[in-house]
Amino acid sequence: MIEKKMEIGNLYAFYGKLLTENQRQMIELYIYEDLSLGEISQNLNISRQAVYDSVKRSEKTLQNFEEKLSLIQKFETHKKELREMSLEIELLKTKLIDKNHDQFLDNIIERMNQLIID
Amino acid sequence: MIEKKMEIGNLYAFYGKLLTENQRQMIELYIYEDLSLGEISQNLNISRQAVYDSVKRSEKTLQNFEEKLSLIQKFETHKKELREMSLEIELLKTKLIDKNHDQFLDNIIERMNQLIID
Repeated sequence: MIEKKMEIGNLYAFYGKLLTENQRQMIELYIYEDLSLGEISQNLNISRQAVYDSVKRSEKTLQNFEEKLSLIQKFETHKKELREMSLEIELLKTKLIDKNHDQFLDNIIERMNQLIID
Repeated sequence: MIEKKMEIGNLYAFYGKLLTENQRQMIELYIYEDLSLGEISQNLNISRQAVYDSVKRSEKTLQNFEEKLSLIQKFETHKKELREMSLEIELLKTKLIDKNHDQFLDNIIERMNQLIID
């Protein structure tokens, strides 16, 4: 269930702005406030079934965006490659005899890591 | 006009799969085949006005995706930073006295450039 919320959260972070205001509100309560469907239902004073349907529909919509665009996958591939390069540069640092370039390499590593978390 | 087609082409490369089949067909004739609206109209045997409306609508839809998601902007920022780092590593190469690491640095530069064109 946690994995499911995380998956929706990841999709939502990319494509959430394409959902309706209503859908966004429910997804945010579900994911960021970590409320159960029952709690959201009480909160918004609508049936649990309506909440369930909305969340399910939003999930499908978000998955559909990723199926078509694959932008999350593209970013993940980028980040994986950046992580690998960052580690390799870290390793280079230990091998360089001339320590004058340590600061330069640290700066590159930091900027790569920044791109990874961005 | 060329700039306009390039802008739509860029948007289309990211979000094109969210358009309808019909819209995609016209945009592709317009951008990739570089046909004029009149030529597309003859080609598909529909009025020039219908072609114009479809292309305009597609353009608006694509711009709307970018306004909401800013994913092109995000990728461009990533790429700009990668380009800068790639140039800086190129410069480091000229400064290193120990040439044993040239191959390693060339490999990093190549992979960064690959991420830029991906």
